[in-house]
Amino acid sequence: MDQDPVETPGYDAAVVDLLGVLAYGELTAFIRMAADCDLAPTLALKSAMGRLATTDYQHYEQLAAHLRGLGVEPEEAMSPFVAPFSAFHERTRPRGWLEGLVKAYVGDGIAKDFYREMSALVDADTRAVMQEALGDEGHADFVVQIVRDTIRADRTAAGRLALWGRRLLGEALSQAQAVAVERDAMAALLVGGGLDLGEVGRMFTRLTENHQKRMTRMGLDA
Amino acid sequence: MDQDPVETPGYDAAVVDLLGVLAYGELTAFIRMAADCDLAPTLALKSAMGRLATTDYQHYEQLAAHLRGLGVEPEEAMSPFVAPFSAFHERTRPRGWLEGLVKAYVGDGIAKDFYREMSALVDADTRAVMQEALGDEGHADFVVQIVRDTIRADRTAAGRLALWGRRLLGEALSQAQAVAVERDAMAALLVGGGLDLGEVGRMFTRLTENHQKRMTRMGLDA
Repeated sequence: MDQDPVETPGYDAAVVDLLGVLAYGELTAFIRMAADCDLAPTLALKSAMGRLATTDYQHYEQLAAHLRGLGVEPEEAMSPFVAPFSAFHERTRPRGWLEGLVKAYVGDGIAKDFYREMSALVDADTRAVMQEALGDEGHADFVVQIVRDTIRADRTAAGRLALWGRRLLGEALSQAQAVAVERDAMAALLVGGGLDLGEVGRMFTRLTENHQKRMTRMGLDA
Repeated sequence: MDQDPVETPGYDAAVVDLLGVLAYGELTAFIRMAADCDLAPTLALKSAMGRLATTDYQHYEQLAAHLRGLGVEPEEAMSPFVAPFSAFHERTRPRGWLEGLVKAYVGDGIAKDFYREMSALVDADTRAVMQEALGDEGHADFVVQIVRDTIRADRTAAGRLALWGRRLLGEALSQAQAVAVERDAMAALLVGGGLDLGEVGRMFTRLTENHQKRMTRMGLDA
């Protein structure tokens, strides 16, 4: 990194944006996933999805507390991101419990990748609160076996879920792009924080590759 | 109490039933309330409802862990109660965020009253896990001020919400009655644990009176 991120012009605004997008992402992931518990065919699955949802809410609370510590109301920091997340969830409503599960796993994976990429560009305090969310990695792994078992018994499900996974990634990237265009400061954090545009492109490539690995892990074509 | 509850015939089955009904009640309250966050008009309200929902999930986990400690799979203990809770939530779908909030407050209150009544009839270990849920009393109190502020500005809302509160209590009692008829052991815990039928009737009277006090606190006719 060329310079201390804190000295980059617009750094404070960028961090508030970053914390706001992460916080609202966790809050909506919590709400959507908890609602999707309703679709789960067994009580054990409802319970496992509920645990995952609750973990997202806890991350939300940590991020919101950190924002308040910076003197920023979480609601204010999150408000620019209401529209893109609504659009994402509106366009990716699961049509059944299996799509809901794959969405939880894929969404959790993309979010964790994004946390990891961004935490390299921020100050130590912000990084610490982001690491808390990364500490829960693996909580969504129960999904892998369930998807594998299901597609072994039902091959048409595999094709349908592979398409679903591509759609989830596509919608996520397209909303991310809309956010980057809208939020100058956060985009500048990426570029100004030592990344050139080529590096930003490579970051998107890494996100896509990691997504493909996760799809493969579930036994689905990426 | 006339005798040690643990020595009452059928006591173990009754406790498993009781823990099962409480656990499934918390799990479905969590799912419904988290889903109702979607209706909330502000991010602050989404966040507050989310916190309440998450607390219910934590109670669920404590009850499930206690069941496992007794050698009982939580799914098995909960399964007799899937139908009555589905019926309750199906018949009390909120038509807006305010009905969702009132449902959260009323439901939480009735549940806490039921915890309190039943914890007097069980052994110390079971009572301890039930007390954990009672420790969160007051978390739903933010609802009171919101309802009061809303009905001050909109008097027609007051009439509609008063009716809604009566409907919630009616549906809850009618499902509770269905459960009591179906689950002999749990009914026997009430009666065999030292309560005669008159006392059971008085318990229902207390639940109703407490519900009316909560409605009054929100500024609604009971």
